[in-house]
Amino acid sequence: MFDPVEKLKEFIRQPSISADPKAKAGMKGAQEFVAGLLDSLGFAVEVVKTDLHPIILARRAGDSSWPHVIIYGHYDVQPADPLNLWAPAPFDPTIRDGRIYGRGAADNKGPLMVHISAVARLLEENPRLPLKITFLIEGEEEMGSPSFGPFLEKYQDELRRADFVFLSDTGIPNEDQMVITAGLRGLALFDLEVTGAKGDLHSGLHGGVLRNPIQALAEICASLHTADGRVNVPGFYDDVLDVHPWEREELKKLGGDEKAYAAFLGIDAFYTPTGFPPFEAVRFLPTLEFNGIGGGYQGEGTKTVIPSKAFVKISCRLVPNQQPDKIKKLVMDAICARAPQGVKLEFIDQHKGDPYVVVPPGRSNTPKNQSAVLAQAFRATDAAVTAIWGRPPLYLREGGSIPIIADIKRVLGLDSVLLGLFLPEDNLHAPNESFKLSVMEKGIATSQRILAAVAAAGKR
Amino acid sequence: MFDPVEKLKEFIRQPSISADPKAKAGMKGAQEFVAGLLDSLGFAVEVVKTDLHPIILARRAGDSSWPHVIIYGHYDVQPADPLNLWAPAPFDPTIRDGRIYGRGAADNKGPLMVHISAVARLLEENPRLPLKITFLIEGEEEMGSPSFGPFLEKYQDELRRADFVFLSDTGIPNEDQMVITAGLRGLALFDLEVTGAKGDLHSGLHGGVLRNPIQALAEICASLHTADGRVNVPGFYDDVLDVHPWEREELKKLGGDEKAYAAFLGIDAFYTPTGFPPFEAVRFLPTLEFNGIGGGYQGEGTKTVIPSKAFVKISCRLVPNQQPDKIKKLVMDAICARAPQGVKLEFIDQHKGDPYVVVPPGRSNTPKNQSAVLAQAFRATDAAVTAIWGRPPLYLREGGSIPIIADIKRVLGLDSVLLGLFLPEDNLHAPNESFKLSVMEKGIATSQRILAAVAAAGKR
Repeated sequence: MFDPVEKLKEFIRQPSISADPKAKAGMKGAQEFVAGLLDSLGFAVEVVKTDLHPIILARRAGDSSWPHVIIYGHYDVQPADPLNLWAPAPFDPTIRDGRIYGRGAADNKGPLMVHISAVARLLEENPRLPLKITFLIEGEEEMGSPSFGPFLEKYQDELRRADFVFLSDTGIPNEDQMVITAGLRGLALFDLEVTGAKGDLHSGLHGGVLRNPIQALAEICASLHTADGRVNVPGFYDDVLDVHPWEREELKKLGGDEKAYAAFLGIDAFYTPTGFPPFEAVRFLPTLEFNGIGGGYQGEGTKTVIPSKAFVKISCRLVPNQQPDKIKKLVMDAICARAPQGVKLEFIDQHKGDPYVVVPPGRSNTPKNQSAVLAQAFRATDAAVTAIWGRPPLYLREGGSIPIIADIKRVLGLDSVLLGLFLPEDNLHAPNESFKLSVMEKGIATSQRILAAVAAAGKR
Repeated sequence: MFDPVEKLKEFIRQPSISADPKAKAGMKGAQEFVAGLLDSLGFAVEVVKTDLHPIILARRAGDSSWPHVIIYGHYDVQPADPLNLWAPAPFDPTIRDGRIYGRGAADNKGPLMVHISAVARLLEENPRLPLKITFLIEGEEEMGSPSFGPFLEKYQDELRRADFVFLSDTGIPNEDQMVITAGLRGLALFDLEVTGAKGDLHSGLHGGVLRNPIQALAEICASLHTADGRVNVPGFYDDVLDVHPWEREELKKLGGDEKAYAAFLGIDAFYTPTGFPPFEAVRFLPTLEFNGIGGGYQGEGTKTVIPSKAFVKISCRLVPNQQPDKIKKLVMDAICARAPQGVKLEFIDQHKGDPYVVVPPGRSNTPKNQSAVLAQAFRATDAAVTAIWGRPPLYLREGGSIPIIADIKRVLGLDSVLLGLFLPEDNLHAPNESFKLSVMEKGIATSQRILAAVAAAGKR
């Protein structure tokens, strides 16, 4: 008998921190654990080498007339520091009060185990289940998935024959309300460096004759938003997808409490574009944020210097159908146009990711050519969630980014069904990460039901 | 024989960074070096304890009928970082191309050594020179001289019997044109810290609902200047002293080359208030500068965080008759009035210093009650400079600050004769600071001649 919790414990015991060069053994252990597990379920496992951590590609043989699902997950985890805040230790999985504690319990080992367990049970019940299943499990998600794009390009001929992607790497507000993530924001990141004089200057000897690069940078940064919180860059909103009424209705059902949210953030006023309350702004609108700024003297006390340089790190969260490269150019062009005389600008390009949106069947804006299997997967998800969790899921766009979902869409042409499974209290990326066992068990049942329904419906 | 250059090397070798708690040995070494040197010249040396770095008070006994000069200097230096830009190392004095390189070579160890050497030569030539000399050498100038005011208060009965103060801690445009500094800018410094959310936030999950403190800080900073380079704070210019026509005439004789100045700074456009060319702006107008800014992620690559806090370090250079406390209040009030909703402000007060002005004899605005010894000192300086450097000095207000000069005026009632000795290319407060040896040698001769003339004229 396949015991999901025991398997998850075994998985968590492998300290698979992809960003830590000292965690090689843990990475290898986690990779071998997953490969072995899928092999034991009858999958043909290929360990695909990359520049860093291999991708596990596990195929279930089947007939080309069967529906074909790709199940995505990742076996790497975030670093566990600060270790002193953990009890028990991050890689010593422990069950307490109905939760399993350990780094990666929720992100993403627990949710991945949900789907592996569902497949194990399905195949145990019906070894001849008419469903092609491909597991695609990477080891670099917590580092920005640098090898994933090249992998998709290389395997695209095979993988694009699948019908949809199924995964759980998103959240739910509470155990009573499941959420299918129907959109993710993209990313466009770059740094701006402003140079004034060729070296740091004495602010007494030279103060008052030249523009301080901190001032120039402040003027540029201050120009990038309007008083009502919009990004003040010509063309920035041109490609922003309209919010469809059903999306606002769906969000209303979530029933967020603005006062509680402000208290959680510790702010006394929101700052959102007119007409967009905070829960809408974070899902439906793009942003331009300053992630860091620096220049001149930052130590204790004073140093009366006019610095030569100052920099800011800018990231834009993008919504469909904004394109990262186009947005980067628009923002950079606006900055160049506004740069005051007497300073030089330099841009340092950073990474990017496309936004993503998928519309479930039966909505006002559902694509007419939506694949029958994808539509069936959504319907099966709706039915399974309603049956197991007691109420239907909400279909919500989210503010975060999972760039590989858009990459899969772009390269393979496939949409994803993102079944949320982590709770706010799961402490992702933080000490004492955990995953709720009741969510795990219901998740397995849900996944099993969805996959069974997709198999039963066939390709039509 | 007293060898000024060898003595200066010995002095520079002491890493006397007053602001660095780890530089205690260097501070003690420099202090003991100066005390020992003055003791060897026959001075009665008192090392006056302060809360931090002692002040050296060295007296030459004499008759109360003799003129009495206080020679001021400081034995502390600026921090030397970034160290990788130094060649040779900052505390390894090296002579190259007629210059001595090292942190403090020009500010202020070299110029101080000029006057010590002049006194050494004078006393060697005439041990009975009828001149009372008091050396007053502090170790906290680069930190804003926090102990100097209390010291002046404590020793005021003795020190206010002196006739004038003589020092070199100011600059000259080139070796052909000596400058007597007739005014200095004051200082008003504080930090501003802006807080948004109570902790750093994930820019995907929460981006677009709150004002980023970096943005709020940028908006505040950008508001503090007008497009034409004036400080945009109500009342800021209210107490600014009018420029007297002779001051503009004197400055014209300086004949600064704006193009060369821009090239020296490495900028392609000046930024000064309308009607004030750069050489006037830096002398006659106050400034508000940003000396440092920081907040959020500053490392390599990216971190998609909305930081909780951001800060800026602000310093105003003040001209007579602006008052530091009044200016701080005006600027802080303007900042508070402009602070956007949703962020909290905190000010961290830093040091301050009054501006200073002294008018040489024979000008339209020379005070009628100017002391005879001070007037004689100015005349002696004029004559000595003309004889040794080939043309008379210019009397110019400078952009830098030596707050203790205004403190001396306020507490002791004494004016200062500020003989400029550093060149623009000396790199004060920057890597590869140096002092020109030919300036040093002529400076010694000049100082010697001035002091001899003041002694010869008596008190009248």
